[in-house]
Amino acid sequence: MASEIFEIPDMLARQIDAVGTYWNAGRRLEEDRIRGIVTCARGTSDHAATFFKYLMETHAGLPVASIGPSVASVYGSKLRLEGFACVSFSQSGTSPDLARLQGAAKAGGARTIAILNAADSPLGEGADMVLPVLAGPERAVAATKSFVGMLFASLAILAGYRQDRDMKAALEELPGLALQALDLDWSSAAIPLARSGSLYCVSRGPGLAVAAEAALKFKETCRLHAEAFSAAELFHGPVAIVRERFAVLFFGARGSAESSLDEAMKVLRNRGACVLLAHPDRERASLAMPCSRHEAFDPLVQSVGFYRFVERLARDLGEDPDAPPGLKKVTKTV
Amino acid sequence: MASEIFEIPDMLARQIDAVGTYWNAGRRLEEDRIRGIVTCARGTSDHAATFFKYLMETHAGLPVASIGPSVASVYGSKLRLEGFACVSFSQSGTSPDLARLQGAAKAGGARTIAILNAADSPLGEGADMVLPVLAGPERAVAATKSFVGMLFASLAILAGYRQDRDMKAALEELPGLALQALDLDWSSAAIPLARSGSLYCVSRGPGLAVAAEAALKFKETCRLHAEAFSAAELFHGPVAIVRERFAVLFFGARGSAESSLDEAMKVLRNRGACVLLAHPDRERASLAMPCSRHEAFDPLVQSVGFYRFVERLARDLGEDPDAPPGLKKVTKTV
Repeated sequence: MASEIFEIPDMLARQIDAVGTYWNAGRRLEEDRIRGIVTCARGTSDHAATFFKYLMETHAGLPVASIGPSVASVYGSKLRLEGFACVSFSQSGTSPDLARLQGAAKAGGARTIAILNAADSPLGEGADMVLPVLAGPERAVAATKSFVGMLFASLAILAGYRQDRDMKAALEELPGLALQALDLDWSSAAIPLARSGSLYCVSRGPGLAVAAEAALKFKETCRLHAEAFSAAELFHGPVAIVRERFAVLFFGARGSAESSLDEAMKVLRNRGACVLLAHPDRERASLAMPCSRHEAFDPLVQSVGFYRFVERLARDLGEDPDAPPGLKKVTKTV
Repeated sequence: MASEIFEIPDMLARQIDAVGTYWNAGRRLEEDRIRGIVTCARGTSDHAATFFKYLMETHAGLPVASIGPSVASVYGSKLRLEGFACVSFSQSGTSPDLARLQGAAKAGGARTIAILNAADSPLGEGADMVLPVLAGPERAVAATKSFVGMLFASLAILAGYRQDRDMKAALEELPGLALQALDLDWSSAAIPLARSGSLYCVSRGPGLAVAAEAALKFKETCRLHAEAFSAAELFHGPVAIVRERFAVLFFGARGSAESSLDEAMKVLRNRGACVLLAHPDRERASLAMPCSRHEAFDPLVQSVGFYRFVERLARDLGEDPDAPPGLKKVTKTV
């Protein structure tokens, strides 16, 4: 896992060389005047799909439905998707339920795009267009670089959809930012998180993708029960279990989401929670992160810093992050 | 909370008297040949939206996108929803972020339908069509009857969409089934759940709505950290924290989803987990539930039995389920 995390900057550099592939796919979605998007994914890759969903909804105004693969694989639904695109996200491209959903989407009239690390796979063969993640072989059970690569692909697709050349150019800063993120010291978070019986990861908007991914990685690699919420959803019930010393890891945002995150942190601190904040503003952050030109890039940078941190934490807890008991690298569900 | 749970059978009887309202709304969606649906909801009502999403995707083949209210309220996105319907779910109809999202959906071309307990509310005023839940005033912080009423409305909308008169007729058995569900004895589950440091609620397909709602109620009323997963998603990482005596509450399904739930229970039992199953087949169930004619009704019946159970558990744990500390009945988020 650690060696794959350190490969992230090089992967991003390869993706920049191939950025035209993602850009053209985004432009094509715009030219085809698609009416909406459905996504098809599981696990970590599904969190990348969440990032893509927020990007396309907030910056392109397109509705994005995350469809449970069971809708096709268990219930055999005939989807009606004329004028839609189906975007699949997968590292291995082999889980049968994903192939079933992609097939049902195609049969229902959707154009299918697969964002895959292993392009040569059943999902890749069934897709109208394959966008390779270029992470190289990923062997650790806990996916890391492939997730970051899917976030990059999502950003580049959005840039192409909007024909936003400034955003495309700004993507070039990401390998350098990832390199800085690998060097961050979040060790002060280790003990508060480890002693919290369970914990929350919180963000808002596109950052929710990283909060969800962090919660999954805490489970997979550290065997800590973490759950992700938006800073708004938190107050529709989940805040009830936040007591003294309950740890909450915030993936901060800049711009319009910032005030709602600030408000949430204040309430949680008043309940005695241990609040940790990853934010590019060093005055505010308890966990540092480098500052990117685009606030839309923050979740990608946060995920790199988090992966570096959680891998160490897992080892300090006596776990084996490379091979968590009971998990397989390639999970095939039906 | 307890008194409101006991009002559920009467509420369902009122909904049956008004079933034409929901049926006509469903028929209208079909006649208008809508291309897709977006939902707008928070908290417990958002779990009802999840039920509606699975119903419409599996039985009508329509894509349903759950859009985070922040897309409108924080990011000010201009949604493009020509040919879509926006269906909002809310008890009070007052959270400003929901009104913002509904407004953005309407501005983007969607027809707006609001399923509300308080029809006379900002959400109701802004909607093209209001479908009242008819639960009567709900005062307990933890919503119960309004959730069940939203599941009923979802089933009746689907029946109308499909012009399924058999399903419409079958709805009439629900008040009786709810009455039986209020009489179930799930007390054997109390101690295993209470001693589990944290726990999972698991189902598949439409049952996921009840698993998610149960997880929220465990937090809100019992201050137990429970998280919901599909039986497939569980194996893409979350299973890692399941050790000896970890409690997992399954909301069972009949038909095509049954084998995947069976397989998941087997794996979890092999890890030493304490697996509890609510299922209409008394031979298989550790937690009994009455058997409905339609498997699509099972989640509604399960939710009634669960509410009865969790309210008692909260009191046995020394909590006050009517007024959990730090929560308000009407949560207004922006």
